[in-house]
Parts: sequence; structure tokens; C-alpha cells
Amino acid sequence: MRVELLTIGDELLLGYTIDTNAAYLARALAEIGIEIVQRETVGDDPDAIARAVREALDRTGALITTGGLGPTADDRTREALAALFGRVLRRDDAIVELLETRFRALGYASMPPSNLVQAMVPEGARVLANAHGTAPGLWLEDERGRWVAMLPGVPREMRGMLADTLLPLLRTRAGDAGAVVASRTLRTTGIGESALAELLGDIGGATVDGLSLAYLPGWAGVDLRLTARNVPRMEAERALDRAALKLSERAARYIYGDDTADLAAVVLQRCRERALHVATAESCTGGMLGARLTAVPGSSDVYVGGIIAYSNEIKLRMLNVPAELLREHGAVSEPVAASMAAGACATIGTEIGVGITGIAGPGGGSPEKPVGTVWIAVQVQGAIRTLGRVFVGDREEIRQRSAQAALDLIRRTLGEAR
Amino acid sequence: MRVELLTIGDELLLGYTIDTNAAYLARALAEIGIEIVQRETVGDDPDAIARAVREALDRTGALITTGGLGPTADDRTREALAALFGRVLRRDDAIVELLETRFRALGYASMPPSNLVQAMVPEGARVLANAHGTAPGLWLEDERGRWVAMLPGVPREMRGMLADTLLPLLRTRAGDAGAVVASRTLRTTGIGESALAELLGDIGGATVDGLSLAYLPGWAGVDLRLTARNVPRMEAERALDRAALKLSERAARYIYGDDTADLAAVVLQRCRERALHVATAESCTGGMLGARLTAVPGSSDVYVGGIIAYSNEIKLRMLNVPAELLREHGAVSEPVAASMAAGACATIGTEIGVGITGIAGPGGGSPEKPVGTVWIAVQVQGAIRTLGRVFVGDREEIRQRSAQAALDLIRRTLGEAR
Repeated sequence: MRVELLTIGDELLLGYTIDTNAAYLARALAEIGIEIVQRETVGDDPDAIARAVREALDRTGALITTGGLGPTADDRTREALAALFGRVLRRDDAIVELLETRFRALGYASMPPSNLVQAMVPEGARVLANAHGTAPGLWLEDERGRWVAMLPGVPREMRGMLADTLLPLLRTRAGDAGAVVASRTLRTTGIGESALAELLGDIGGATVDGLSLAYLPGWAGVDLRLTARNVPRMEAERALDRAALKLSERAARYIYGDDTADLAAVVLQRCRERALHVATAESCTGGMLGARLTAVPGSSDVYVGGIIAYSNEIKLRMLNVPAELLREHGAVSEPVAASMAAGACATIGTEIGVGITGIAGPGGGSPEKPVGTVWIAVQVQGAIRTLGRVFVGDREEIRQRSAQAALDLIRRTLGEAR
Repeated sequence: MRVELLTIGDELLLGYTIDTNAAYLARALAEIGIEIVQRETVGDDPDAIARAVREALDRTGALITTGGLGPTADDRTREALAALFGRVLRRDDAIVELLETRFRALGYASMPPSNLVQAMVPEGARVLANAHGTAPGLWLEDERGRWVAMLPGVPREMRGMLADTLLPLLRTRAGDAGAVVASRTLRTTGIGESALAELLGDIGGATVDGLSLAYLPGWAGVDLRLTARNVPRMEAERALDRAALKLSERAARYIYGDDTADLAAVVLQRCRERALHVATAESCTGGMLGARLTAVPGSSDVYVGGIIAYSNEIKLRMLNVPAELLREHGAVSEPVAASMAAGACATIGTEIGVGITGIAGPGGGSPEKPVGTVWIAVQVQGAIRTLGRVFVGDREEIRQRSAQAALDLIRRTLGEAR
């Protein structure tokens, strides 16, 4: 099944909000064999919404929209679609009741009157329940079977409604035609895009055994994405397995997982298997490494805690970094990173300690230590391993790359200790 | 001037990468009075690229593309555009030289051969220099003055090239027509979308004095965005000032800044003005609050450091939280948050300490303390203030909202102490 996607909102067209819904929807739909063939964005303008919907229905006959279903006056999707389909808007008392219950549960004495507009439903529309917010979704279909599914724009509500209501509905509608778009990602880190292509050599082109291959660089590393199109699911999975194995054989050292694998989760699992505990000592990343580790549910059996040693005084006093190391080598240096890792183990009381110190910029660089210079150290059961890098990017990117490189250093150190 | 935007990449259409370039370009272009009137996304398919470019040139005559200029075989923009414009690709020796210099500077013995393709330029194209990566941009124009500007897809490279080369070029081309799209955002936090609309009452509709008003909810709070369209810059700025003042008068208590204001930067500045220093003690946020504060360049004169007290043992030992508090009230409780804030001040040695403890989920909730329950405490020069909330959202959102609420509690506490 082929559908189009229309994301609605001035904030999207003006660029004040990044459109995460488009990506999320594409992934979720691909899993049930539905392909997004075109994607458009318009502002909160009923005419522009109506024009875009009309064109999409003429081209593809199936459209999912996000946004414009909220309670405020800039939410125009409901009225634009009702007008386009020639349906009057009527108040749906069941929705009013649900809204009132929801607001009472949130501790409101009564529902704000502005939310009443969310109970207005175009005649003949199907209501898509929203268990995650106030805006119900809507499904409108014309006499020729062409349809529009309207989802809210708030990502959490959109995702909930998609899973609860729209995906089951589309799955029924799509039937079991069987042909899917299926992908597999191999996530690499610690190697650049060009070097990775060189390493893969003759199998690193635009296609591998008929599957398309894309290189997707980002702060987490370069993802290798294989995609099979328009083949039955079982056949696609087998082809992806074979091609992924080929790539893995050449680039094994740099691959930390498949698909949406998160390096923090990978590291936590390896530590868990060996009953090792982790402590962090962060300077330039200021807590990002701790945040990466604790973003993983259930991390508390491995990650105990950390010190954010942003000032040198905290490095000295709480991590026992010797003053002479700071004096002789500077805070951003291999021996200070090593001492921070050792200090994290000793202070927090863990088998593994990680130290990160660097110059995230934009200021603070020098010819010898330019912005992006980062030293990372990992102590595992007394043995220390260090890594020095000069990362490119802005402050945030340098910090993200530093936290990722620190996680990778734990992964590699544990791999070798195996 | 009106342009269209085409973002290119299988990873975008399949949803494996979130399109941040579209938003960034829209903002940067709006500032010089250029409006993006349509936005489309296609995969790495030369036919789809050529079709989309042809349509955009027919409609609008001006197009910016991102992506597909890399060194690997899935990068097809160069060849698709050369074919569409009927130009042959020729090797540009000046680019070869630049690439070789760049790779040597990165420590490579020689340039990977795959990068040679990036030196291929369609006949008659203008090369847009890339000081931030290997892929040069290209500008192609036909005999009717219709043009396409091709930028790389890697955000850092795209942004650099936009600022260095394309914006100056477009500014010259657009001339001084003067009519701009200008926006102003008032950033609120600690109040929901509906409640904010109620508070604003009659001035909270879709337009304020002819400017459009949008409510943009997110984990950081609800942004109020005013937009003026197609008026001269000075007039737009005056109208935005007037409308922003109207809104501010009603919602002052919840507004922490304008436009892209970051609450962490606001809090750091307020502390800096009073020579106050901050320390953090984080449990459920695991370092995110420290990461927020240290994301701001120059934060080191205010933020000293913190303890990530993920385990109770660290709360006891490093923050001196009394064991009986943990036993009687549980780790997620008002007294424990208060004790963590006090412990942060005492251990790190600062005038301000922040404690955060909560249940980020998905597990760990109970009827009395459901997932999302968070206690936050701020100690300022000995006086403690606490805040208990039950946040909605997934694990990451609950953590982000917690860090934001902690920053806002510092802001409000300092506001009152003034």
C-alpha cells in the first residue's frame, strides 16, 4: 500500500520545530509494508491544507496528516478537511465526556472551554481515540474509497494513537499483499564514512546483492543501512541477513549493533553479563555520559553514579587528581583523564571508571590543543586504557562524540578482556 | 523571494534520519526575507530527484537541495542534476587539490580514491566551497535564470556552506525588496497549552493585531510564536514588539525568554549577576541537568560540578542523605530531594544546590507514586524550596521535563529573592 504524508504547522514550514513525526511514521508504516511515496509540509492555513490534501488524494488516494487538531485557534485541520469533504462539523458528546473525564483526572475543576472545539467531528467521520492527550484523531473517506487519517501533531500523542488505532486499521485495510520495504542497519563508530567505504571495498557500493546500501554519518558514528523493496517479508529478511553478514565480516571491529542499537545499552549489557559496575567522571561532557547510561531503563544494576568535575577544584578534591598532573599537563591531557577514571572507581567504588576531559569550544582552544581535543580514559579492574581525539563539530557535537567515544572505549576494552 | 526545498536521501523518506536541515534552512532564509513555499523529500533515486527538481523549477524557479553529494555510490544528486540540465560532468582539478590538502591535514597519507567523485562538476556549474567537509556544493542555472543550489546533507557541512557561500549569494540576488517573514517567540514553561490559552483569553486567538499566533508545546514548555508576513522589516519588528508586550503582560510569570532562549542560559546569567555558584545532585535525570548547564559556553564561572547519585548508597555516602529519610519516605520524596539539594551545596561547596529524584519509568511506578512522579528541590543560600510533579511522557520526556522544571525552580526562586 502506498500513502502520502502531510505534516501541518507554521512552526514546521518556518523551521521553528523539527519534524520528527515524518520519520517516525515512515518507520512504523514500513514495518507493515506501507510505503510513504511523497511527503509535503504546509502551514496552518486552511486553503493550503485543502489544496495539499486534494492533490494527495488525486495522486495517491491515501493520506495521513499530522497537526492542527489542538484546542487553539491556529489549529485548522478539522475545519479545512470538513469543508473539502463537504461535511458539517457536529459536536460529539462522547468526546465531550472523555475530555471532561481527562481534565478531572489531571486535577482541573472543569475542562477549559477552548477544548470543546476538539469534540467537533465532521459528519460521517470515524473518530480515532486518543488515550495519550486531548485531541482525538479523525478518519474521513469519500465515496470513491479515498481516505485521510488525521493525527495530532504532538509526537507522544501521535505515536500513541498510531499504535493504538491507526496501525491496526491500516493493517486490516492493506490485507496480506505481503510485499514490504524492509531495512537493516549496522551501526559503526570510530571510523569515518570514506574510510569505511574503503574498508568495505567492492561490497561497499550503492547496492549489495540487489539491496540498496546507504552510509549515514552522524555523531554516533556511520550507520550502514541495507534496504530491500517490494519483496515478500521472509525473502527480504533472508536477503538482509546475507548482506549484513558480508558487511560484518569486513567491518566487525567497528560495528556495535543492529538497527536502533544504542551503544550505552550495549555497554550496560556487557557489564551486566560480567557483574561489573560503572562510575563516571566527566568534565567537558558535564553529565552527558551519565545521561546516556541512565537513559537506558534498568541501568541501575550496572551504573552506580558519577562526579561531574567541571571545575579543577572538584577534580582535585573529589577525584583525587594530583595537582602536579593538572599543573604539568593541563586539565585536558592523557594523565588527567587516566587519573579521573581511577578516581571515579575509587570514589564511587566500582570495577569500571571512565574519565573524560576536553575542550568543547567555542573558546578555550590553542595551537597545541585546538577546540575538539578530548582525552578519554577507561579503567577496568585496575588496568587503564586511554584515547585522544580531535573531534570536529560544534560544542554539542563534540560533547556527543566524546560521550559516544567513551562508551566505545569501554566496549572495546571489555571485548579484549574477554 | 520564494524558493522550494528538496531534501534528498532514502534515510529521510524511510524515516531513519530526522530531517533537521529543512528547519534550519527555513529559519536562516526567513531572516533575509526568503520564504520556503514548498518542501518535498525524495530518496536516493536519480529519476525521483530529477522529477522533483523539474517540478520545483516549473512551479517556483528556485530550489535548494540537501544531500546526495557524498563520496559513496548512494550519492546521486550530482549526476541526476547534470543529466537534467544536459551538462557533462568534468573533473575539477582545483577541487581535487583541496580534497587532497584536506585529507593530509586529517592525517591521511593520501585521499581515499572514492572521494574523487566529489571533484566531478557539471559543465557551467558554480562551485560552492565547503570549508567544513569534503563535499563541495554546486549551483546550476538554466538560460531562463531558474536555479538549483545543491548543499551537502551532513548538517554541520550544510550550515557552514550556507553561511559562508549561499546566504551571501542569495542576499545579492534577492536585492533589497524588503518584505520579510519575521517571527518572535515567547518561551513559557510550567503551564499547559489549554491553561495558557485561558490565561491569555481574548488576546490568545489565532491572530494578535494581525500577526498569527501559534502555540507550540514541547518538553521545554509551550512556546508562543508570533509571525508577521510580507511587511517591511522595521514595520514587522514594531508589530512583533507590540504584540509580544501584550502577551507578556498576561503571562509574565511563565515566560523565561524570547526566541531561542535556553532556560539553562537564563539561569546561569541570573546566577552570574549575583556571583552565585551552582551544584547539582541528580538521581533520575542521571546527569541531564549538568549536561544542560554545561551545554552553555562559559558556564564554568557559575556551574562548579555535581554528583550523579543514581544508587541510594551514593545518596547516603556522597550527599549525606540520612538513611532514615530514605527508609521512611522512599528515595522519591520531598525530604530526600531537599536533602540532596543541601548535600550538593555542602559537598561541592556552592551557594545554590539542586536535587532531583523521580520515577522516569517505564518500570518502578506504584499507585501512590506513579511513573512520572518527580521531586525537585533548590537550596539558595540556606533556604530550600521544593516542587512535586507527575510528568507525562516516556522515560526521556519525563527526564527532560524534570531537568527543565529544576532550572525553572532556580529561576523562580532567584526571582523572588530579588
